[in-house]
Amino acid sequence: MSKLFESLNEQERITLEKLLELKKESGTHSPSPSEIDQILSPKNILVDACFLSNPYGTDLYLRELNKLMSSDACRGYIENYPSQNHSISKKLSNVLSVNEKNVFVGNGAIEIIELLLKEVIQGKIIVNLPTFSSYYEFCEEKERLLLNYLKKSNNYQLELSDIEGMLDEAEALVVINPNNPDAQYTQFDKLEEIIQACKRKDVKVIIDESFIHLKDGFNSYQDASHNYFFENYDNVIIVKSLSKDFGIAGLRLGYMLADESTINRTLAHGKLWNVSGFAEHFVDLLSANDYMMQYEACRKQHIDDIKELGILLNNIDDVKVLPTNTNFYLIELPDNIDPQVFCYVMLIRYNVLVRGANDKVGLDGNYIRVATRRPDENKLVVKAISDTLSDFKKLLD
Amino acid sequence: MSKLFESLNEQERITLEKLLELKKESGTHSPSPSEIDQILSPKNILVDACFLSNPYGTDLYLRELNKLMSSDACRGYIENYPSQNHSISKKLSNVLSVNEKNVFVGNGAIEIIELLLKEVIQGKIIVNLPTFSSYYEFCEEKERLLLNYLKKSNNYQLELSDIEGMLDEAEALVVINPNNPDAQYTQFDKLEEIIQACKRKDVKVIIDESFIHLKDGFNSYQDASHNYFFENYDNVIIVKSLSKDFGIAGLRLGYMLADESTINRTLAHGKLWNVSGFAEHFVDLLSANDYMMQYEACRKQHIDDIKELGILLNNIDDVKVLPTNTNFYLIELPDNIDPQVFCYVMLIRYNVLVRGANDKVGLDGNYIRVATRRPDENKLVVKAISDTLSDFKKLLD
Repeated sequence: MSKLFESLNEQERITLEKLLELKKESGTHSPSPSEIDQILSPKNILVDACFLSNPYGTDLYLRELNKLMSSDACRGYIENYPSQNHSISKKLSNVLSVNEKNVFVGNGAIEIIELLLKEVIQGKIIVNLPTFSSYYEFCEEKERLLLNYLKKSNNYQLELSDIEGMLDEAEALVVINPNNPDAQYTQFDKLEEIIQACKRKDVKVIIDESFIHLKDGFNSYQDASHNYFFENYDNVIIVKSLSKDFGIAGLRLGYMLADESTINRTLAHGKLWNVSGFAEHFVDLLSANDYMMQYEACRKQHIDDIKELGILLNNIDDVKVLPTNTNFYLIELPDNIDPQVFCYVMLIRYNVLVRGANDKVGLDGNYIRVATRRPDENKLVVKAISDTLSDFKKLLD
Repeated sequence: MSKLFESLNEQERITLEKLLELKKESGTHSPSPSEIDQILSPKNILVDACFLSNPYGTDLYLRELNKLMSSDACRGYIENYPSQNHSISKKLSNVLSVNEKNVFVGNGAIEIIELLLKEVIQGKIIVNLPTFSSYYEFCEEKERLLLNYLKKSNNYQLELSDIEGMLDEAEALVVINPNNPDAQYTQFDKLEEIIQACKRKDVKVIIDESFIHLKDGFNSYQDASHNYFFENYDNVIIVKSLSKDFGIAGLRLGYMLADESTINRTLAHGKLWNVSGFAEHFVDLLSANDYMMQYEACRKQHIDDIKELGILLNNIDDVKVLPTNTNFYLIELPDNIDPQVFCYVMLIRYNVLVRGANDKVGLDGNYIRVATRRPDENKLVVKAISDTLSDFKKLLD
């Protein structure tokens, strides 16, 4: 590290220190682009490949928002209280073709995850590591956590045999499918077997499908959803962030599908007006048939870009790229490179941001996570990774 | 009632029943305008004088939002996660000239009220009735509530002598100033005396100042705030919704000023990304000096309109209008008129919505609450009230 620090000029060194400090303050989550930009100033992030989001989804929403802004309806979404939660859930239930009593709309999926882990599930929870950190951080009593470390030798695949022994004492199992940060997918049959095993032991299965709709191979958005499991197994709860595939993280919107008693237990915690007027407008958009039709093209375009990025990444020397099942890639750096420092040096020198995965408990190796952006941006990302690798090589040789 | 129902035509009767049913479903809060519009369809609410909001504030924000939409910055607020809570609180602390460690930004004031009553205050709470219903509804254990019924004979004024006997067993006192729904104001000196009495008994005082900035007589927005109490008494917590005065209820934004330990106890409940990108944009607007300067004109214009509306309302026969200290009026109807039915008949016949106050526990009489809108709308509201009173008079004579 000291050799590396010496090779940076003074300005670079100061910036790197500030970025590492900001990351520390942000805990196991990434600092926001605007916070990072304040440190980089007067430069800005050129490509943000840290954040997992479909840019074509954002394009589509922006077009609709522009239409809204020039219509009279706009004022109402800003001036008035949004509809109460149950009323927005009802609208969404029509889109999802499920009973309105089984839907809860959240201020982002994270609000739902917090409610589930703190207010609904009171017993022990099986969490597979690595994972989205909130799934264990919201469990304040650490003795409630039953941790299953996914094996690198098994490509971080979830196996029933690894968790079977925990089912007797568990109240719930969390399965993010595909998983974040490793982008690995638990096949339909395998997942059904896990759900059945859980059902026999009266264990709920929380399936977080926030990344499923960006997996290649499904004919349609609906086709990709895990609704079959929800409809056929009463121990299944579905959690879904709409941020990633629809490109609207700023709106804060997610939902849960669950049995009525779980929904009522979450509703008991206030949540009267928990999503904003713009989020309600987005649900109204989804209710209009042509939005989903237009979105389907955005989804497929993004999946094409993911595949193209994969080819480019696999051409980089000295790194190992895990095959992906969603819109990001987990990449293993050489042994002697600290991923977080690597990412921030790349950001300082080439203005490209990817995510260092040091803070992901359960990852065995020096990983970075790279999100898919637009094709021209993806090329810049790949070049920045290559160039930064060369920089480090020179330093560390 | 039956005579009234008979006098309505069939369509009116069906609509009235649906509206009363919707109100029942909405509990002690008002149904949203869009829910009401669905029932009124094909007609719409012409003037919404139920909802308490400064229309000039909305105008100002809409102008800024239009500017944002035509700039590159817009995309970031939608596509990216908003900054984490502490980072937005820091921005707001600069606007409010308080230490960032004393600020918590909420997804609407209601999120803050819920956190305060459920997670921070564990003991008994003195609540003055009538009040904003969430202040007692979030207290799930009813034995935690110490209820002080404000006296009609005293114009619903808060008196230290009425609550003094409760201080020994209380952990906190809630003072909405001015109060909702009666629009009564506790004078500065009187409030300071109450705060001091509470301090002697180690009782926290939660001051909800959501309506203070629309009270006549203050030179500036800052001047109207209760910051003096927060700065001088460590038992004071300030809660503030930004919905009302800034006309942005759809954005969901409020804040709390409190001692560091209270702030940390609320932050411990997740709330990482609890406000939306548009709410963050609004905080960024507030941080720009000229927004508050422009807003000051909106505030004063609205206060002028409030006074003008007061004159018109006082000219209506057969009702008693309570003097106001904010942007709405509490009006007492004749004894034999049910306020909720009155409001919905008025809505059906004249497309003007005001709030029936039957559901406000602690109000002694048949009240409706009338919000100030723009001058031309206010005239329509006053005429609709007069006309509906005539309609009822004919029926009930």
